Amino acid sequence: MSRTDAALTHFESHLDAAMARWMDWLRIPSVSAQPAHAADCRRAAEFARAELAAMGFAAALRETAGHPVVLATHPGPGRGPRLLYYGHYDVQPAEPLELWTSPPFEPAVVEGRNGKRVVARGAVDDKGQVSMWLAALRAWHETIGTMPCPITVLIEGEEEVGSLNLAPFVAAHREELAADIVVVSDTGMWDIDTPALTTSLRGLCYVEVKLTAASRDLHSGVYGGEALNPINALTAALGRLRDDKGRILVPGFYDNIRDISPRKANQWASLGFDERAFLGEIGLSIPVGEQDRTPLERLWARPTCDINGIWGGYMGPGSKTVIPSEAVAKLSFRLVPGQDPARIVENFKAFMRANVPADARLDFTLFGLGEGLEIATDSRFLAAAEKALGREYGRNPVLIGSGGSIPVVETFRKELGLDSVLMGFGLDDDQVHSPNEKFDLRCFCKGARSHIRLLGELAAE
Amino acid sequence: MSRTDAALTHFESHLDAAMARWMDWLRIPSVSAQPAHAADCRRAAEFARAELAAMGFAAALRETAGHPVVLATHPGPGRGPRLLYYGHYDVQPAEPLELWTSPPFEPAVVEGRNGKRVVARGAVDDKGQVSMWLAALRAWHETIGTMPCPITVLIEGEEEVGSLNLAPFVAAHREELAADIVVVSDTGMWDIDTPALTTSLRGLCYVEVKLTAASRDLHSGVYGGEALNPINALTAALGRLRDDKGRILVPGFYDNIRDISPRKANQWASLGFDERAFLGEIGLSIPVGEQDRTPLERLWARPTCDINGIWGGYMGPGSKTVIPSEAVAKLSFRLVPGQDPARIVENFKAFMRANVPADARLDFTLFGLGEGLEIATDSRFLAAAEKALGREYGRNPVLIGSGGSIPVVETFRKELGLDSVLMGFGLDDDQVHSPNEKFDLRCFCKGARSHIRLLGELAAE
Repeated sequence: MSRTDAALTHFESHLDAAMARWMDWLRIPSVSAQPAHAADCRRAAEFARAELAAMGFAAALRETAGHPVVLATHPGPGRGPRLLYYGHYDVQPAEPLELWTSPPFEPAVVEGRNGKRVVARGAVDDKGQVSMWLAALRAWHETIGTMPCPITVLIEGEEEVGSLNLAPFVAAHREELAADIVVVSDTGMWDIDTPALTTSLRGLCYVEVKLTAASRDLHSGVYGGEALNPINALTAALGRLRDDKGRILVPGFYDNIRDISPRKANQWASLGFDERAFLGEIGLSIPVGEQDRTPLERLWARPTCDINGIWGGYMGPGSKTVIPSEAVAKLSFRLVPGQDPARIVENFKAFMRANVPADARLDFTLFGLGEGLEIATDSRFLAAAEKALGREYGRNPVLIGSGGSIPVVETFRKELGLDSVLMGFGLDDDQVHSPNEKFDLRCFCKGARSHIRLLGELAAE
Repeated sequence: MSRTDAALTHFESHLDAAMARWMDWLRIPSVSAQPAHAADCRRAAEFARAELAAMGFAAALRETAGHPVVLATHPGPGRGPRLLYYGHYDVQPAEPLELWTSPPFEPAVVEGRNGKRVVARGAVDDKGQVSMWLAALRAWHETIGTMPCPITVLIEGEEEVGSLNLAPFVAAHREELAADIVVVSDTGMWDIDTPALTTSLRGLCYVEVKLTAASRDLHSGVYGGEALNPINALTAALGRLRDDKGRILVPGFYDNIRDISPRKANQWASLGFDERAFLGEIGLSIPVGEQDRTPLERLWARPTCDINGIWGGYMGPGSKTVIPSEAVAKLSFRLVPGQDPARIVENFKAFMRANVPADARLDFTLFGLGEGLEIATDSRFLAAAEKALGREYGRNPVLIGSGGSIPVVETFRKELGLDSVLMGFGLDDDQVHSPNEKFDLRCFCKGARSHIRLLGELAAE
């Protein structure tokens, strides 16, 4: 029996204990956004620290300006590729509580369409996925008495609130975090039978724009027809951001975007993405976005412009005939490799200035600026992950894109010069960030097994 | 000494008492919108009833589905034109309280640029203007022992919340309310030296439109590029409502609008409206609205489209990458005579449907539908009012329009077949509906004197 097979066997025979640890962790309401849960965040960090210490890691909580970071190192056999595992112990707020079928911090094991599932806040994101690779590390530890490779673990507590303290922490601990590759499980599979590696992420620039007109709220009877209405002006300008073919009209918006490679295009085409089902599940039927692109390009490889929030004037019941003095919108551009986020923001500001009346004052606030990112598809680490997933699932993983952003991946690239393997086991129906978040037990088990195999592949190099 | 002069002299020598009654009325916080003030509304109604009873009126509170109506009748000499005085005893909420320089329901007499003024919620709107004509009625009563004409008084308590119960009340009491003309003081002067009669009012149609896209809120990373964003769609459609020359693009919007008469155009031109000062006072410099019209046409005689409120998605601090499931706007059209409000609403709905993607669901809620209204400028009642004002001020009043609506004027026309004389004494800086509402004592006195003169003119017919 190979060492990997022994670790797999060990995992299977100790599944109950792995699940118990996962569920104990879920019981700690480590909601990073809510100050009342600060002590719970620390408890959740301590839980992970103790778990890593029990596997022989030198593990400690490290303070930041916010919630602490768990940092643990294990020399393993003293040779082989150095792996940096990243995850987060914080979770999204559980509200609205009334929509949960069971209390969010009392994990429930229930039957679902794929068999048993665990329902709780953090079931998958990211405590579930981290528990999965912690179980893999433990299986190795209890099988061979050490780690198969030198391993560093970094588990932060502020991913759900923007990881503001992580980049400074990484920059200040470059030597301790030195590694050859980052391993992250915070993404999804293609479907429950098809594993996936995520190799591209969209960047994000997020801007708030406030348009101020008159110096005070006005009566629309007295002033209507003469006075600039900031909601009229803001909607008119925002309404011009896209043409009727879904193209975004900010000047230079599409500059330097490369089309996806023919290989990727072929692979994506072969995925058989069911756009009708994808949209149908959310009550829609007609895609927006660029009409001359495929659905997966629109989701993974093309930039977007979405207004994420807007407000102004009277928002209560009934009517009020006010011309308000200001109106505000939040909007974000998802960006792809080639686009320069800083330039996009400047061009957007210029676009807005050119599209509002001269009397309007515009104020911009920037809430995020990250570029699109591509992960090398020809690396030995990605090859090892492909092999591990292929063995576990009996089919090759697909290389997918993600329409979202994982800013920490950019941080590791910038601060440590490291690429990441994004090997995640979530499913589209996991209700991440929503009530009744769940993780299928099957995903958890095969995910842990894939991580065991990945370690075996890398150790054998 | 004529009877009118005797009444004027009486008013002057009893001014302190008239002011005391006005201020006592202002001390009652009759905020119709706030249920906690329901008893105060009734007290304010009772105050007016008692005041009318003291002048020999048969006066009673009449119940409605909301706050009571004060209805009072006096046969006067049993001949002459029958006058229906209308006013309202309710006031707007006083909030935000911290912006008041003195408590809103403790009227303060302070010095202002036009001499003494009374600062209080309701100082002018409408307790102040009603107190003014109540003082005129009392001057006549105490001078000649009766009213100079048959008079009916109707004072409602729900004007600030839409007068929802007034039209049914008027319709149910047509015989008691029978008259030859309605007299209303709820409008303004041209400036403190120039009296005005308002002879046109804009109508209003007020619509809320909700655009629903996906069946739930979506993550803009996962769905952006494919899923319809309701804020994008709503702003795009609303942004198309007007062209860059200020014309409103709802089909048929300008149908059947008559240009103002050359006489009116000349008179308005002679007013020397200072558009620069009008806009400058509110921090603006460039008029919106139709560019090929004069400022007073845009304010009084041309229709508008103002978005009064808008909301959707994330409105908190920082960023949230949500594609919400819905977005809502409230908007209103100010309408002028000739426009059919019902048709405008239907055309607006059709415009919106034609300008949103097929996947968008639109729901409309109507909060008001009133047509623009013109008052006959050749009536004997208006002539009497012009004469009264001319004598009091030593200059002829100007015939002005109002950009706002006074729905009750339409109610009286529809239910009773009566035109109204809109003779008001407010000034632009009265802070109506805002903190530190005031009424200049000079306006109050000359307003009361003008009402005394108007009664004298009409009684002499």
